[in-house]
Amino acid sequence: MQSDNPTAAILVIGDEILSGRTREGNAHHLAGVLSATGFDLREIRVVADDNDQIVAAIRAFDKSLGGAYDLVFTSGGIGPTHDDITADSVAEAHGTTVEVNPQARAILQARCDRMGTELTPNRLRMARVPVGAVLIDNAVSGAPGFSIGNTHVMAGVPEVFRGMVAWLVPRLSGGRPVQSDTVEVRRGESDVAEELKAVAEEFPDLSLGSYPFQDATGWGTNLVVRGLDVARVAEAMATLRQRLDL
Amino acid sequence: MQSDNPTAAILVIGDEILSGRTREGNAHHLAGVLSATGFDLREIRVVADDNDQIVAAIRAFDKSLGGAYDLVFTSGGIGPTHDDITADSVAEAHGTTVEVNPQARAILQARCDRMGTELTPNRLRMARVPVGAVLIDNAVSGAPGFSIGNTHVMAGVPEVFRGMVAWLVPRLSGGRPVQSDTVEVRRGESDVAEELKAVAEEFPDLSLGSYPFQDATGWGTNLVVRGLDVARVAEAMATLRQRLDL
Repeated sequence: MQSDNPTAAILVIGDEILSGRTREGNAHHLAGVLSATGFDLREIRVVADDNDQIVAAIRAFDKSLGGAYDLVFTSGGIGPTHDDITADSVAEAHGTTVEVNPQARAILQARCDRMGTELTPNRLRMARVPVGAVLIDNAVSGAPGFSIGNTHVMAGVPEVFRGMVAWLVPRLSGGRPVQSDTVEVRRGESDVAEELKAVAEEFPDLSLGSYPFQDATGWGTNLVVRGLDVARVAEAMATLRQRLDL
Repeated sequence: MQSDNPTAAILVIGDEILSGRTREGNAHHLAGVLSATGFDLREIRVVADDNDQIVAAIRAFDKSLGGAYDLVFTSGGIGPTHDDITADSVAEAHGTTVEVNPQARAILQARCDRMGTELTPNRLRMARVPVGAVLIDNAVSGAPGFSIGNTHVMAGVPEVFRGMVAWLVPRLSGGRPVQSDTVEVRRGESDVAEELKAVAEEFPDLSLGSYPFQDATGWGTNLVVRGLDVARVAEAMATLRQRLDL
């Protein structure tokens, strides 16, 4: 698909994904939001709670550090426990150190006051952000995320991640949303490959995909046309339907 | 967690994951299987149906090509359509070319004969594998996966992927399965961070993780101990329970 939309990558941080304990869903959620707001998601990586892996991925991704993509979003590892090392690793990748951010500290203090608890050293860990970072609001549980360079660091707890995405993404300069249209055929992929390829060649600015599935009545295939221009997508879908006698 | 188990990475190939259309589940399934059979999954990457991205990832991953991990598993892009480029890209990464594999051709021909269909050029695409590859059985839909070097290439359709994993993984030389134990506490992560850190330091051979969640009755945290020795995991969990007065 031809696109001059800003490019993006997602870095998911967490042993629990790699161990098979948790099925990752944050990247899927953000992928949908990015498509709809005009960002071109090019890559997702899942790494362990491991400093070297996180630093290497941030440097490979963040264009402000010579990496491949305009924007980087991370999920996970910004909580209060010993294995929450994302802030430190992102700081290292960006050549800086972490500090207790006064604004983040005030947010956590206000929340503790409201709940009648104490701002313990462990809770205060969640106010540590890289020097120069800008906070990302957390309407769900207080402790903020942060942005530094082109890297946007968010929490792994799904409710919190979604809240941060909802706050952050509308504040970023996106491009044109992706338009898509889907048709389901009761044929195997092999039986539509010829027609699909012909239409893909006729519409080189669009992306044509085929996704086979199996259900109670046998095999079928979803054919998906994607692009930035709604009229072109409709034109390609009409051509495809005609070729397939639908 | 200390482990001398073989290391592994998963490469998921498919625009439909990055567009947000499909929620990836194959990596999650395989992650659980690898944990249970003694492989140490270190990284998951999702890339587009893009030759450069696939070649770069295979080279970064496969130890036989100078990459970082003992084993590589891929999901997706081995069907009959124009955007199914995985076999070609994996061949390129391994410095070889693709050919129609006679055994794969026979499998597809037998299936077509059984179903009364023709082995069209598009169907025959699914018999193209890198020179030197060994086939992976597909009991679900016929068209095989393949192994070359340390790279194991499987289909993206979930039923087919699972079938290939079930056939392949028992044939690989694994290490010791991961043992884990979990306890749920009705406290926030901050309120257990101290105890968790102390036990983590006392058991440096194990991995201790904390996973906060929110449900109808408020916030809670799952505490997970993981390691290769079941007695050590039990000992650490007992120590943790004692420290937390559980």
